[in-house]
Amino acid sequence: MKFVGLRDGRETLVAAVVGDALAPLADVRDFYADLPRWTAEARAVTRGERPLAGAPLAPPVPPSARVLCLGLNYRAHADEGVYGVPDHPTIFGRWTPSLSVGDVPVPVPANEPGLDWEGEVAAVVGTRMADVDAAAAEAGVLGYAVFNDLTARTAQKLTAQWTLGKNADRSGPMGPLVTADEVGSLAAGLDLTTRVNGEVVQHGSTRDMIFGVGDVLSLVSRTLTLEPGDVLVTGTPEGVGYVRTPPWLLRPGDVVEVEVEKLGLLRTPICGAGGR
Amino acid sequence: MKFVGLRDGRETLVAAVVGDALAPLADVRDFYADLPRWTAEARAVTRGERPLAGAPLAPPVPPSARVLCLGLNYRAHADEGVYGVPDHPTIFGRWTPSLSVGDVPVPVPANEPGLDWEGEVAAVVGTRMADVDAAAAEAGVLGYAVFNDLTARTAQKLTAQWTLGKNADRSGPMGPLVTADEVGSLAAGLDLTTRVNGEVVQHGSTRDMIFGVGDVLSLVSRTLTLEPGDVLVTGTPEGVGYVRTPPWLLRPGDVVEVEVEKLGLLRTPICGAGGR
Repeated sequence: MKFVGLRDGRETLVAAVVGDALAPLADVRDFYADLPRWTAEARAVTRGERPLAGAPLAPPVPPSARVLCLGLNYRAHADEGVYGVPDHPTIFGRWTPSLSVGDVPVPVPANEPGLDWEGEVAAVVGTRMADVDAAAAEAGVLGYAVFNDLTARTAQKLTAQWTLGKNADRSGPMGPLVTADEVGSLAAGLDLTTRVNGEVVQHGSTRDMIFGVGDVLSLVSRTLTLEPGDVLVTGTPEGVGYVRTPPWLLRPGDVVEVEVEKLGLLRTPICGAGGR
Repeated sequence: MKFVGLRDGRETLVAAVVGDALAPLADVRDFYADLPRWTAEARAVTRGERPLAGAPLAPPVPPSARVLCLGLNYRAHADEGVYGVPDHPTIFGRWTPSLSVGDVPVPVPANEPGLDWEGEVAAVVGTRMADVDAAAAEAGVLGYAVFNDLTARTAQKLTAQWTLGKNADRSGPMGPLVTADEVGSLAAGLDLTTRVNGEVVQHGSTRDMIFGVGDVLSLVSRTLTLEPGDVLVTGTPEGVGYVRTPPWLLRPGDVVEVEVEKLGLLRTPICGAGGR
């Protein structure tokens, strides 16, 4: 099954994608409060009520969702930066107001030379998790989505804490949520490709992740209780722009695409600061 | 004026505090969507409808609020750690599910030797801010609240990113929001005292903050658009527990209090991991 968020005034509905149509199911908070009910209803849907094309999409997560992001989680990417391969997963946070969806222009802040791309896979939590082991954590994943962790490098590197540079307006576009039964384990390897204006800039496989989804969610669950709708963004493979010689960053007018096997294509145009 | 959140099923209402009673005003999202209306209504309230004592309080912020926290923002605290005084504000994030209110027990995660205290002042944003200067940012603050940035040091120090250790369950208790007209500028100096089981462990003044509220909100607004209800937690003075010899951390049964001039007293009992 595949789910998207649908903007409805101030609220977000979750809708099932059925071919090229949508079947709205429930308010996003109701959806995550009773996933067994709503996934069963989605499974029973045979046709959508409204066309997917032109629908006002939104990220299919509740406003209170924690968006945990991993840095340095592919060996070759950890090596290309200045950090080296870590002993523990490096976790930073996004707030949900930074999230967006495909085809929505993302502005370059006026004090940044550009934005950097980071093609990734996001995992969406499907059960409450407190002090769970890795197997239980992985089994509790509802599904996965393509994610672009667009980064304001100047703000990210201002201090040792990356938070500010990871929360620029609309800088976290996210694709539809594809349920785990259709995806399998990321450790088995999904091909991930990032393209800028059609040119391939990242090409990796999720099999090269250092820390697996279950391991990270298990670790997190020792400190905080994960809730359905929380998100783990699993890190990017090598090939980001700022470490290149010369550096290559996204400028207004550029188009960046992240494509992940089984999850689809996420396309993001870049616009100027006036687009904020 | 003074505002608290009031739990109403899954929702949070904002209520004005009138003496020892509460006057519920609006759903927290409606409140921040039209602050001029609701602050005017609060100003006109002469008596509350229900007693404050025993009311199910909640943090008076919307679920999507960004809780930006400052590290190392008092000179003597920056010196007591291993980091030194920074050139830029060190910003990390909490998600709203980590927030709590006074008198609610906060559990020590099973993999931590205890929790550390950090008495602080939180500023709540009252206007949308994008690319604003420091004066406009400070003028756009709705009000202030006592905050205890209770920290899981083991998780915080696992990697260079502090996020995980700053988001343990209920680890961010927050007092009532007191409007800025009753507080004035933090730079003028509010006395802040933290006590553990009655013993003073921190005693500072907000006049010793390195980066002011206006400066930090202005900087943040260059990268992301702040919205009403977003929170800036302004850092802690010297005297935290983990740098002491021997280290001193909060254990189940301890009670920590943060008291700030004009803002009040925030009392937090500590409980065991079973209390998660």
